[in-house]
Amino acid sequence: MRLLILGGDGYLGWPTAMMFAASGHDVLAVDNYLRRTMALESDSSPLFATPVLEERARIFKQKSGHDVKVQIADCTHALAIDRIFADFMPDAVVHYAEQPSGPYSMRSESAARTTLLNNLGVTFNVIWGVLNHVPDCHIIKLGTMGEYGTPDIDIEEGWIEIEHKGRKDRFLYPRAAGSLYHTTKVLDTDLLWFYARTYGVRVTDLMQGPVYGLSTPEADLDESLMPNFHYDDIFGTVVHRFVAQAVAGMPLTVYGRGGQTRGYLNLLDTLQCVRLAAENAVDKGQLRIMNQFTELFTVNDLAEKVSRVGNQLGLKVEVNSIANPRREKEEHYYNAHFTQLLELGLEPHPMTDEVIAGMLKTVARYKGKIERRKILPRVQWNT
Amino acid sequence: MRLLILGGDGYLGWPTAMMFAASGHDVLAVDNYLRRTMALESDSSPLFATPVLEERARIFKQKSGHDVKVQIADCTHALAIDRIFADFMPDAVVHYAEQPSGPYSMRSESAARTTLLNNLGVTFNVIWGVLNHVPDCHIIKLGTMGEYGTPDIDIEEGWIEIEHKGRKDRFLYPRAAGSLYHTTKVLDTDLLWFYARTYGVRVTDLMQGPVYGLSTPEADLDESLMPNFHYDDIFGTVVHRFVAQAVAGMPLTVYGRGGQTRGYLNLLDTLQCVRLAAENAVDKGQLRIMNQFTELFTVNDLAEKVSRVGNQLGLKVEVNSIANPRREKEEHYYNAHFTQLLELGLEPHPMTDEVIAGMLKTVARYKGKIERRKILPRVQWNT
Repeated sequence: MRLLILGGDGYLGWPTAMMFAASGHDVLAVDNYLRRTMALESDSSPLFATPVLEERARIFKQKSGHDVKVQIADCTHALAIDRIFADFMPDAVVHYAEQPSGPYSMRSESAARTTLLNNLGVTFNVIWGVLNHVPDCHIIKLGTMGEYGTPDIDIEEGWIEIEHKGRKDRFLYPRAAGSLYHTTKVLDTDLLWFYARTYGVRVTDLMQGPVYGLSTPEADLDESLMPNFHYDDIFGTVVHRFVAQAVAGMPLTVYGRGGQTRGYLNLLDTLQCVRLAAENAVDKGQLRIMNQFTELFTVNDLAEKVSRVGNQLGLKVEVNSIANPRREKEEHYYNAHFTQLLELGLEPHPMTDEVIAGMLKTVARYKGKIERRKILPRVQWNT
Repeated sequence: MRLLILGGDGYLGWPTAMMFAASGHDVLAVDNYLRRTMALESDSSPLFATPVLEERARIFKQKSGHDVKVQIADCTHALAIDRIFADFMPDAVVHYAEQPSGPYSMRSESAARTTLLNNLGVTFNVIWGVLNHVPDCHIIKLGTMGEYGTPDIDIEEGWIEIEHKGRKDRFLYPRAAGSLYHTTKVLDTDLLWFYARTYGVRVTDLMQGPVYGLSTPEADLDESLMPNFHYDDIFGTVVHRFVAQAVAGMPLTVYGRGGQTRGYLNLLDTLQCVRLAAENAVDKGQLRIMNQFTELFTVNDLAEKVSRVGNQLGLKVEVNSIANPRREKEEHYYNAHFTQLLELGLEPHPMTDEVIAGMLKTVARYKGKIERRKILPRVQWNT
């Protein structure tokens, strides 16, 4: 297959590109380093520097013998993405090319505008790249479980049948996200659904939970092939922040009461899910929505796990609750279903003590590089 | 009250500006003539030329003694709209500043991009103009009944309580619009709801059906104060197209089987609804959604009414069905509720034979200007 990976420099994009290349597919990774620029601007650079894409591809070729083609381009530029589709003619496009941070989107009006226009603009350009050049191309889009928010009813996989006043119909599951970033993913889903049902575009929209982990078969080939590791409050997810805090000897900072429940998954499982989506394309005009996580945890669960495993390794980890910078429910009902990816063959890698210990040990190699000023919340919702 | 009317040159914007000014409010109308430009570009100019806003305001002042302030500005420009909010400090903003045509949005990739970026961009700028300068300002946004599509269950006013697996919650009513233009209104609603619940913005989102009519107390003061009248396939709605066809001696062209049901309202009732919304502001953080129409008709109902009244006036009107250029259900369940505006005091002006005869007589004054090439569908969905 010819696989186009948009956002190929990202935490998920680069491991995905390597995974498909290692499986013998023809892979083109595209990025404009937007996340690197935003991380610099917001003093949120990752734990260790990762080489630029051309250099990563060179090293990956040397270590594995496989090619990842690279193109540096801004996917919000209609002409740039049009040329990429016309030249590469992908069978599937994996669309990660979005500003990926909730806190970043809540920093300022300017950051909110960039998030909205970038994320919607790229999705729009991807749709038209497909329509203009490869109408059978399968769009695999990374959405987020955060689109659903925390409703008081069970979260189904993207759709819900509603019975109302004695009649029934099937609808997109209603969405209510907790940040502007997550809201742009809601808008993406609306837009993709419109183009699927009206123009026959093929779409898989993956409602993914927070991902953790640094190890994949390809990333493990060389230190310079590792995905970026953000432990800051802006681009770091809670698991990675807790791991960095444990290593740095800082208390793990739980936002508020810590009852916030979400679905999490190992980076290895993101790769499996995206591969399963690509290998099982959908029909023309179909929008398939799959919930992509493997385990539900509260923030308190995560703090308990990381502190317990950290203490076993002799790290003396404390846990502190701090004022919640976000607007979110800290205790809530959460029953999210996920069966489709398991039915396609996903074999989950649970968050075992060994997995957490592995992350702690990897991050400990960079202990001296952890910058404490980046970890505590610097962005308040609604100020 | 200080009322900011964005899109003040439009079919609804100009009558709205005059109505509020005539009621003694302080009114600033803003427009960049985007609709005029698009009409020119798509060979869809209206039946008669309307003066530019400054000239309309001058004539209105002369005829009524009331002022409408005018500013020509592009509301997608963040700085322009920021200055307008900072200088005018409105109590309420009526946001009509959107590309308003379904067919226009389906003409081409370029038209779709302009529709998406214009409509979302202006809504975003309005929200931030309010947040930065007048956080208590009431945003009155024109949405569309088209956001809901044609579901097989009753259409409620914006929200629905869903009972699912023995639990309940209240959600935005699920939406599935029939054109990209209508989809941008869905995205607007998503965005406004996020900013209402997260930042406390006050919003009324009016789900309006197609509007018809040329007469308002202020528009009737002088021919040059009339709203623009589009009878083309792109910016003209079905009622106005039928009226123009009846006058021009062309058969009324029903798209497909003609069972498409929608909620319609008289321009006089749009003005009442917007006034009622402005006079009854919502609380901070509230998104009030009201369905704004007064009567449900099928396209066949409208063809029957216009042809019958036209024949009474001696016009010899025929009705033809033609291939439907749109993707839409031509026979469907449609039971849309509207009670909130009636409870606020709306007194509907139904589509009586007299109202239709009035439109036919007004348009007959311009019979020689009707350009037949503009009326039949020039835009196909999904080509």
